Amino acid sequence: MQHLIRTADFTKEEILELFDDARMFLDMESNEVLKGKIIVNLFFEDSTRTRSAFEMAAKRLGAQVISLDVGRSSRSKGETIFDTIANINAMSPDAITIRHSECGLPGSLIEHVNCPIINAGDGKHAHPTQALLDLFTMYEHFDGDLEGKKVAIIGDVKSSRVAGSNRRLLPRFGMEVCFVAPDCFKYESNEFKQYDKISDVIDEVDVIMSLRTQLERHNEVYFQSLNDYAKDYCITKEVFGDRNILLLHPGPVNRNIDISDEMLSDPRNKILEQVKNGVAVRMAILKKLIK
Amino acid sequence: MQHLIRTADFTKEEILELFDDARMFLDMESNEVLKGKIIVNLFFEDSTRTRSAFEMAAKRLGAQVISLDVGRSSRSKGETIFDTIANINAMSPDAITIRHSECGLPGSLIEHVNCPIINAGDGKHAHPTQALLDLFTMYEHFDGDLEGKKVAIIGDVKSSRVAGSNRRLLPRFGMEVCFVAPDCFKYESNEFKQYDKISDVIDEVDVIMSLRTQLERHNEVYFQSLNDYAKDYCITKEVFGDRNILLLHPGPVNRNIDISDEMLSDPRNKILEQVKNGVAVRMAILKKLIK
Amino acid sequence: MQHLIRTADFTKEEILELFDDARMFLDMESNEVLKGKIIVNLFFEDSTRTRSAFEMAAKRLGAQVISLDVGRSSRSKGETIFDTIANINAMSPDAITIRHSECGLPGSLIEHVNCPIINAGDGKHAHPTQALLDLFTMYEHFDGDLEGKKVAIIGDVKSSRVAGSNRRLLPRFGMEVCFVAPDCFKYESNEFKQYDKISDVIDEVDVIMSLRTQLERHNEVYFQSLNDYAKDYCITKEVFGDRNILLLHPGPVNRNIDISDEMLSDPRNKILEQVKNGVAVRMAILKKLIK
Repeated sequence: MQHLIRTADFTKEEILELFDDARMFLDMESNEVLKGKIIVNLFFEDSTRTRSAFEMAAKRLGAQVISLDVGRSSRSKGETIFDTIANINAMSPDAITIRHSECGLPGSLIEHVNCPIINAGDGKHAHPTQALLDLFTMYEHFDGDLEGKKVAIIGDVKSSRVAGSNRRLLPRFGMEVCFVAPDCFKYESNEFKQYDKISDVIDEVDVIMSLRTQLERHNEVYFQSLNDYAKDYCITKEVFGDRNILLLHPGPVNRNIDISDEMLSDPRNKILEQVKNGVAVRMAILKKLIK
Repeated sequence: MQHLIRTADFTKEEILELFDDARMFLDMESNEVLKGKIIVNLFFEDSTRTRSAFEMAAKRLGAQVISLDVGRSSRSKGETIFDTIANINAMSPDAITIRHSECGLPGSLIEHVNCPIINAGDGKHAHPTQALLDLFTMYEHFDGDLEGKKVAIIGDVKSSRVAGSNRRLLPRFGMEVCFVAPDCFKYESNEFKQYDKISDVIDEVDVIMSLRTQLERHNEVYFQSLNDYAKDYCITKEVFGDRNILLLHPGPVNRNIDISDEMLSDPRNKILEQVKNGVAVRMAILKKLIK
Repeated sequence: MQHLIRTADFTKEEILELFDDARMFLDMESNEVLKGKIIVNLFFEDSTRTRSAFEMAAKRLGAQVISLDVGRSSRSKGETIFDTIANINAMSPDAITIRHSECGLPGSLIEHVNCPIINAGDGKHAHPTQALLDLFTMYEHFDGDLEGKKVAIIGDVKSSRVAGSNRRLLPRFGMEVCFVAPDCFKYESNEFKQYDKISDVIDEVDVIMSLRTQLERHNEVYFQSLNDYAKDYCITKEVFGDRNILLLHPGPVNRNIDISDEMLSDPRNKILEQVKNGVAVRMAILKKLIK
């Protein structure tokens, strides 16, 4: 049985096959590929976007979904997450999708279940389905020619599981990844190319991936205000100029903090295409992992 | 593509066709008219009744439903409703049902989506599916002979989207609508027939539609207590006498405030028939709007 | 029409037929036995376990589920539970599953509906689907030979609807039931065999059913701490020794209060089998009650 805890769980070949399926699903109505299958969604962190994308993907494939509101209920009765998972597993679901604030938790559940686990985001660690949909969006945009393409990931990279998963996935397809962030948001490691300002990279990159400023993950106040951050890191028309750069963002966007209103209407931003692709890529993933 | 923002979005002929479908659905088991379709329910205001009626209608037609708990999640992350809708739309649902406290909001979303929008209630403005099920209930009760029938809508008419939608819809079918309310609940406009007391109209009307006293929509205290209101406006057996009047209410009923216990057991009240018809009429609406 | 309010609603023969179906469902993939049926889940008390087991059972049978979050919404608008039920019933669901903190409430709803009511737990009174799955688990374990088998139910028996339902069900199949509890958790009635210590019964029993210490049902503090309770009533390896006893628990388990970590890994505990059987038994119940 195969799980998706991190993008490394799939070979390059498997990922390209996923993309073939995703492309097919983009052109299809609903189908019955997973008819009779039941997928449990376990979201320990609130999420409209990812949860509904997984639910949409499952239902498009004819599967049923059970969404457990695990913030409340049994866990408030003192049950550990391992007991919760053992119990859900005993009900024989066909897959479990899980989001949790603790890094590594979805991976640690694998040995406790008899069905595929899909990591829908674990703390600052990984968000593999997001990175796969990001890669798919770039793959389609550049007609499969990713070799040597340069991607700048901008913002709160240190806290971002989206940055983490992309950082590991994109180089496997020949892409170069660098980061632009204020010092407080930079990785502490020296192994990554990190820059202070967007202007340091803007003339060299093919893709800019802006991140959501994850204020809820910080205990300290790094900036006097979000506006201070935006002054230097908001993606504006002025910053972009007429360069032929693809603009991505995992959503939800903080308007005029992460990206300006103007750039959100600009055809170079493919954020809604990411959302659309996100359903198709997740359909391909569910199809691959479930029997 | 057609939407249902207000009852005026459907012609008289379309509404009569809806009623034919609703009548058919009342006699049918579940079917697969919308098999493979996915409907997103976006309720920004709490609602058991309307939300479950829409969910029941969709599932009876073989469609799947994704209910987004939009009070929490992405919106708490600062996303605007237009961004939320653009994202949901990017997932290609087959219809979006929306309830929101802001008048006009569902209508303003039309240009942002590629699927039908169904208004499930917007502030004090409109509740078109409720008015259509009310009309259907009267249409069936009077064997299609609505011309000249008189309806008194009683209670907090000024704040009521149910009153608003019925006021506009019923006259298109030849019905006369008047209102009975204390001054504080009356419309400020002179264009409507408004009365102070139920006794002013009780001998002339064919239908009394009692409204739920919408205390949660008022900031001021109009009455010393609900009992003061009930003394004059509660529909009791004493008020009704043995008149052959149809009694309707959109629910949930405030017992002994809107309508007395006794009248809630009286066969002249068709409130549960409204609920039953509400599923069938919404099935007809979903069938009409979705492909 | 048949309901399941208490286990006495089914004859011994009916229960054995249920078990035949449950056994069949354990070996089957999803099916379409209840295709087109719609089941409403009304949980007035939080529950991950029972609610998801019912949802899983329904979906495995091809039915659709509408889960109403009845803690909020219409009821906060002042509607009585009888009005809520009358309204749900008017939407013609194929069954209603209800959990409520008030003893006897599900039974009192029967006369207000046109579909089967399934009691998913009412206060301290009954939890018939749990007792049926407990019985099924023992029936399978002992190859149908239950006559004369002895069961000790241990813990907060007075407050436990699981104890209540098992106490009434098991003797119908020739089993002997006794209880082990501190005085404050004992029944006040003399009609039951009650013991102070596990050691009083450990050498005679075939099954030990540990209960969850229902702290949330007590207003007073009976013990200085849960650890005081655990000292005498926690099921440990030391208590069990190498006796051939079946260990059950309705879940969720308070680890090292109800049962020790070690015994939770012991093959004599069949708690996860209870969970698995719980889906199959509920599938059999839904199949039996719905048309």
